[in-house]
Amino acid sequence: MSEDYILVTGGAGYIGSHTVVELLNSNYNVVVIDNLVNACMESISRVEEITGKTVPALQVDLLDKNAIKSVFKKYKISVVMHFAGLKAVGESVELPLLYYHTNIGGTVNLLEVMKEYNVKNIIFSSSATVYGTPQYLPVDENHPVGGCTNAYGKTKFFIEEIIKDVCNADKSWNAVLLRYFNPVGAHKSGKIGENPQGVPNNLMPFVAQVAVGRRDHLTVFGDDYDTPDGTGVRDYIHIVDLAQGHVAAIKKVEAGCGCVVYNLGTGIGYSVLDMVKAFEKATEKPIPYKVAPRRAGDIATVYANPQNAEKELGWKATRTLDEMCEDLWRWQSNNPNGYKASS
Amino acid sequence: MSEDYILVTGGAGYIGSHTVVELLNSNYNVVVIDNLVNACMESISRVEEITGKTVPALQVDLLDKNAIKSVFKKYKISVVMHFAGLKAVGESVELPLLYYHTNIGGTVNLLEVMKEYNVKNIIFSSSATVYGTPQYLPVDENHPVGGCTNAYGKTKFFIEEIIKDVCNADKSWNAVLLRYFNPVGAHKSGKIGENPQGVPNNLMPFVAQVAVGRRDHLTVFGDDYDTPDGTGVRDYIHIVDLAQGHVAAIKKVEAGCGCVVYNLGTGIGYSVLDMVKAFEKATEKPIPYKVAPRRAGDIATVYANPQNAEKELGWKATRTLDEMCEDLWRWQSNNPNGYKASS
Repeated sequence: MSEDYILVTGGAGYIGSHTVVELLNSNYNVVVIDNLVNACMESISRVEEITGKTVPALQVDLLDKNAIKSVFKKYKISVVMHFAGLKAVGESVELPLLYYHTNIGGTVNLLEVMKEYNVKNIIFSSSATVYGTPQYLPVDENHPVGGCTNAYGKTKFFIEEIIKDVCNADKSWNAVLLRYFNPVGAHKSGKIGENPQGVPNNLMPFVAQVAVGRRDHLTVFGDDYDTPDGTGVRDYIHIVDLAQGHVAAIKKVEAGCGCVVYNLGTGIGYSVLDMVKAFEKATEKPIPYKVAPRRAGDIATVYANPQNAEKELGWKATRTLDEMCEDLWRWQSNNPNGYKASS
Repeated sequence: MSEDYILVTGGAGYIGSHTVVELLNSNYNVVVIDNLVNACMESISRVEEITGKTVPALQVDLLDKNAIKSVFKKYKISVVMHFAGLKAVGESVELPLLYYHTNIGGTVNLLEVMKEYNVKNIIFSSSATVYGTPQYLPVDENHPVGGCTNAYGKTKFFIEEIIKDVCNADKSWNAVLLRYFNPVGAHKSGKIGENPQGVPNNLMPFVAQVAVGRRDHLTVFGDDYDTPDGTGVRDYIHIVDLAQGHVAAIKKVEAGCGCVVYNLGTGIGYSVLDMVKAFEKATEKPIPYKVAPRRAGDIATVYANPQNAEKELGWKATRTLDEMCEDLWRWQSNNPNGYKASS
């Protein structure tokens, strides 16, 4: 094993923790930093249980530049995987300055420290939200970007542009910008999973909390979209597939790729009601739901063209909808209150 | 005179100092902050000479949030005019992180302090660069934005989006985003003007330094554009016209406008050679020039549709090309080394 470390920012979060598992399984050394604003260190203990390896994990806020530097002083970092950031769409509309300050300020600090320590490989956690309302389907990486209307999505777009400019100014940088579609599910062990604070913003954690009895019913926002059953269609991707996409991206940055962009999705669209039915099948529990009006900013249908990632990263999502639901349910039923009960 | 102050960030700079003169002439109280990275306090002394009024001016960096707060504690601010920021296109391509850190970080700090002190009126110094390569001419405010390729221009675009989101989240904010075309010239007194550090990035300061003997000759980048004489065409606007546009914008924010955007330009395009000839006429000096290849990122022709500002701000540029050149020459010949000699 080499002395090099992969630095994972936001590594205690949902996507971060699953990616750390896959990195450890691929024999990378990992160091995690997380400000724990929206995560807890219990997830890292679980990662250690799953993998039988230890992970140094430090409470570091990216707004504290000296704290970032201390990590780069202590560990020889070869690649940074940058997941850290606030991510609630609705909150970002209410509190845009918080999002710009945290996500843009934190990323610029991180990039400055990377530059100072001559660490010029980054994999960035972007989002399909940068595409805004799709002009065609499936959405490929050449689709116009920047059309999204909430501050959360804009921070993803702005950070992509910042990283592109950094790579353009200094050709020794390599960056893979990964545009996620809708990550769901959990690790097969049932030990780690999505652990939203308060009311979940995303469909599947909400559905799971209904199944486990923490919520009465699901609210379906709009059943009059131009889709097969009238509910919104998204490209749900199993979190472990997504995590493995990041491991594939490491090889790309290490080969020297400049700044490249890939969709991480399945290419398949499922409606809200498809997801509810699949989850009912996996859990053998009914998921009561009520239909409410559409939410502002929601769109009918989005799904990815994931072919570039397959061609250029040698990565493809393989896990089925049933597996997403079964794995989510194992996590949720084993941990009805997330990480809280055991912390 | 009221107890309210207009806070002018970057008030010691070229556009800032001329705007402070017009504000004082319109009987506003002004407090200036500037980090003096690209300006000096001598400009404020000159503003005081011109107007016969005193201006509190503090060396404050917008990256120092506590320093901003101390200004808001001391002065009752009614409107912020936000000029502060790095502005060299070429440097921004080389050092994008410096630009994102300074311009975005500084603005977010400023907006956070404004919010904290319940000061929710802002006039922002944006740029026609946000339009990128024009899709039609003249460029009006509905032209698509975000197409520019350098970090300087992107910071202007990102800040516009940030301010829009802030206004959208809280309807008690008012913002006027002013998209400048090409400000040139100087105050009629010859006491204040553009004072670039090092080699000027913009045409007219360079021409003026040739005339005054600080440079051998002008380099014209490209004479094979699809324009009447082959050189690039821009919308040059007299700095005092531009400054007066800001005074007009104050009334707009005070009336409660939400977030609005105006071009500040004349609507007239002049070529590089037009400008050289006009300057030769004003100075009765020859301006030797050499033609060099086009610069990457430069475009053939840009000029404004300034009708919205006329209609909604009651403001219109009135100063002629000859006046721009005469006033620039008075400043340059009286101050061949800018503010340096007298500081």
